[in-house]
Amino acid sequence: MAEMLYEGKAKKVFATADPNEVVIYYKDDATALNGAKHGTIVDKGIMNNTITSFFFELLGKNGIEHHFIKKLSDREQLCKKVKIIPVEVVCRNIAAGSLAKKMGVEEGYVLHRPLVEFYYKSDALDDPMISPDYGVAFGFATDEQIAKIRDMALKINAVLKDFLAERKVRLIDFKTEYGVDSEGNVILADEITPDTARLWDWDTNEKLDKDRFRRDMGGVEEAYHEIIRRLTGEGK
Amino acid sequence: MAEMLYEGKAKKVFATADPNEVVIYYKDDATALNGAKHGTIVDKGIMNNTITSFFFELLGKNGIEHHFIKKLSDREQLCKKVKIIPVEVVCRNIAAGSLAKKMGVEEGYVLHRPLVEFYYKSDALDDPMISPDYGVAFGFATDEQIAKIRDMALKINAVLKDFLAERKVRLIDFKTEYGVDSEGNVILADEITPDTARLWDWDTNEKLDKDRFRRDMGGVEEAYHEIIRRLTGEGK
Repeated sequence: MAEMLYEGKAKKVFATADPNEVVIYYKDDATALNGAKHGTIVDKGIMNNTITSFFFELLGKNGIEHHFIKKLSDREQLCKKVKIIPVEVVCRNIAAGSLAKKMGVEEGYVLHRPLVEFYYKSDALDDPMISPDYGVAFGFATDEQIAKIRDMALKINAVLKDFLAERKVRLIDFKTEYGVDSEGNVILADEITPDTARLWDWDTNEKLDKDRFRRDMGGVEEAYHEIIRRLTGEGK
Repeated sequence: MAEMLYEGKAKKVFATADPNEVVIYYKDDATALNGAKHGTIVDKGIMNNTITSFFFELLGKNGIEHHFIKKLSDREQLCKKVKIIPVEVVCRNIAAGSLAKKMGVEEGYVLHRPLVEFYYKSDALDDPMISPDYGVAFGFATDEQIAKIRDMALKINAVLKDFLAERKVRLIDFKTEYGVDSEGNVILADEITPDTARLWDWDTNEKLDKDRFRRDMGGVEEAYHEIIRRLTGEGK
């Protein structure tokens, strides 16, 4: 049995024989409101592994360095081992969720330009919003890492936004995480899935993401399947 | 009677015969928790006019462009009229108040480097924290303005921190606001006072600022008088 290095809300990470590689296992567990709401989305682990593997391959072809090596099975992928920088990076094209509420605009407000936000990754502290200076001020990231992360988030946004638009999906916003690999490079890690991105149907603005779970809208599994269908032409 | 252009929580702004100048009148009203707590600090308007006039003159001598022209009376100062950029800028040397709580550190934690935070200036929205990108994304500031503001906040911090240290006062953090003058320059506006800065006695860490009011610690007026005494050698 491989040693489990970490268990998060949606994934488990296992050691491999290679100290620079890990296996990431995708669970069906769904949480919202920073863990206050719990549930299960049937086969979410299988769907998210498919979706994030697809996105990471696409991003790799577009010059984004990332941790993904290959899909191993329905729920498992082989990845480079990284030391996660404790910053959650949100890139937004359209105001939705917490942003719309806090800035007093309607959900759907089109931002004049994509924006990048930083949150300190800490379940205990509820992932508080930070400014770019916090990395150095608290000693958890350098200015160069923060600048590179912002740059990568905007490049990832440009690639995904165009790709999804062709498939009639509007990329509203998404969260990414970054890690430092064994050679000291900052690379994209974690996942990009309907758990971590807001994806709306281009024509109807129907939500095809975890907001259906967060807001008890029903049709959660169908939305994830629809994303797979749009990406790959396969699935239900 | 001069036309009142604006009334805020601590100040009133009046028009003058010169369209590029205003009179700012300092009130005794004190609020905290974004207006949820109200009260009066005796002669606060007089003390804060003295303190902010002093700081702005000091900053001007050190190359910081600002709105202050001259003190007119106990409670009034003549200032350049500016269009305020709706961003509250907080510069911090030591974690206190909301920062200590949200990052899970003790009040008094020494930051590895001064940090700058941005908040969107809106009483209705409770001044939410924003990232530098919000200015352009929502159309209320340019990248150049935000970069200049950050730069100015750090320079102001360096000047005030050293000046106060010589007077045995520790500059924990302070809030500033900036405006655009009639020539399009971004200049320091608003005030720098114990209402807007955390100031601790160097040796004892005794609070000499509005936290005494916010936290019902007593000795509020004495603290403001003590700051005047340290700055000028005058006062009670």
